[in-house]
Amino acid sequence: MRTLKLTLSYDGTPFVGWQRQATGASIQGLLENVLARLEGGPVTVHGAGRTDAGVHALGQVASVQISSSHPVDIIARALNASLPPEVRVGRVEQATDDFHARFSARSKTYRYRIRNAAIASPFESAYVWHIQDTLDRPAMQEAAAALVGTHDFAAFRSLGGDATTTVRTVTASEVSVGRAPLGPPGEPEDGPGSLLVYEITGDGFLRHMVRAVAGTLVAVGRGQRRASSMAALLAGGHRADAGATAPPQGLFLVRVVYD
Amino acid sequence: MRTLKLTLSYDGTPFVGWQRQATGASIQGLLENVLARLEGGPVTVHGAGRTDAGVHALGQVASVQISSSHPVDIIARALNASLPPEVRVGRVEQATDDFHARFSARSKTYRYRIRNAAIASPFESAYVWHIQDTLDRPAMQEAAAALVGTHDFAAFRSLGGDATTTVRTVTASEVSVGRAPLGPPGEPEDGPGSLLVYEITGDGFLRHMVRAVAGTLVAVGRGQRRASSMAALLAGGHRADAGATAPPQGLFLVRVVYD
Repeated sequence: MRTLKLTLSYDGTPFVGWQRQATGASIQGLLENVLARLEGGPVTVHGAGRTDAGVHALGQVASVQISSSHPVDIIARALNASLPPEVRVGRVEQATDDFHARFSARSKTYRYRIRNAAIASPFESAYVWHIQDTLDRPAMQEAAAALVGTHDFAAFRSLGGDATTTVRTVTASEVSVGRAPLGPPGEPEDGPGSLLVYEITGDGFLRHMVRAVAGTLVAVGRGQRRASSMAALLAGGHRADAGATAPPQGLFLVRVVYD
Repeated sequence: MRTLKLTLSYDGTPFVGWQRQATGASIQGLLENVLARLEGGPVTVHGAGRTDAGVHALGQVASVQISSSHPVDIIARALNASLPPEVRVGRVEQATDDFHARFSARSKTYRYRIRNAAIASPFESAYVWHIQDTLDRPAMQEAAAALVGTHDFAAFRSLGGDATTTVRTVTASEVSVGRAPLGPPGEPEDGPGSLLVYEITGDGFLRHMVRAVAGTLVAVGRGQRRASSMAALLAGGHRADAGATAPPQGLFLVRVVYD
């Protein structure tokens, strides 16, 4: 047996999420089906982040143990030839035997995209949360920065996760202005546009945590909550005190870092 | 009666094209249906560019004569409330009585997007022509530049247009490297990426002209045709001598300029 590391991107729109489910196509299920054909038997693919339905990935990492001796480039080509165009494998590498995409991960970065404009772009409804109310970006940035450090993130966890502890270390949490070439009608493509990009890096994330954080930051941006309230929110640990869970389509798993 | 000028963006993927047709939803038809309800009677909407099925617009312009006295902002809001999310009206303005989106246009700019990479991006199959062969961009740029000026573009015209002359004046024709935040797996988002952007500005375009030009430039980029062959191609005027018509999903009507 050898262990392979796959790095892939996907458009989460048509899928039930990363995890194999009876109700529809999953990225894990698609990968397992193609690899099982190469292997001539069942395989299990582990993903670094178990993204929800509608959530996208720019740099998801998966691991799999197979006995097939095909060169990694052939396996990458076979995957891309069989997978739907919404899933693309960028790289297949040989990994050490003990490599596990989820348990070996040192940090993950997620991005949440918000289009803050009166009129939506017709090109990105599946890739942003469109918000018409003008958001206070400096207030959002102040609130975002308060998450950096080692905290109990219970206030941002949805039920149903399998985490044994809700303490996580966040090393970056930042709101910036993004670029997107196919924005709302009339918006200049080069100047500072109306795309707000929130990025968070940490050693791990609880279920729906990034979306709960994004929803809370938007509440701050709307003036419904103070930027300075984040510390008390973390300390309190009550999910009901944080903002609503932001919709899935704005979320991207950007990258996973290993030793 | 008053004349209105509408500026709009649309994702052409789900439509049969700009023009009203019996076979499916068109952008013209959708606009006419909403405006007819406001007007209480039939209206005719004229578009600056009659984009084909799958072709997109960032700055299409349309004109319509209506008697309704609603303020322009109310009309814009009513349009966006009724149109599908793939069509967004950026602006509605009062125009002079003789304004006609197509006949008053002084110039139009089209953009053709090519993703030149081994692996496609999962996010943009509806917005680029994906080409795996490495393209020679300087050769494409040399060929593109040869189109600037007043020429007979018969070699780049598809049958079925209603143009009385095939002479057009092109004022800009350029290949550059574009940016796109959701590119192929593993591609850096900031450095020079693999998106080639062709832009052409002219006083008018023949049916399928930009796509025939894009297909010819790709043939140059692949080394199947010399960059220096464009002058002879224009002089010959035979459509069969030019390259294949590039697929529609890479094409965007970027803007229309009036006096």
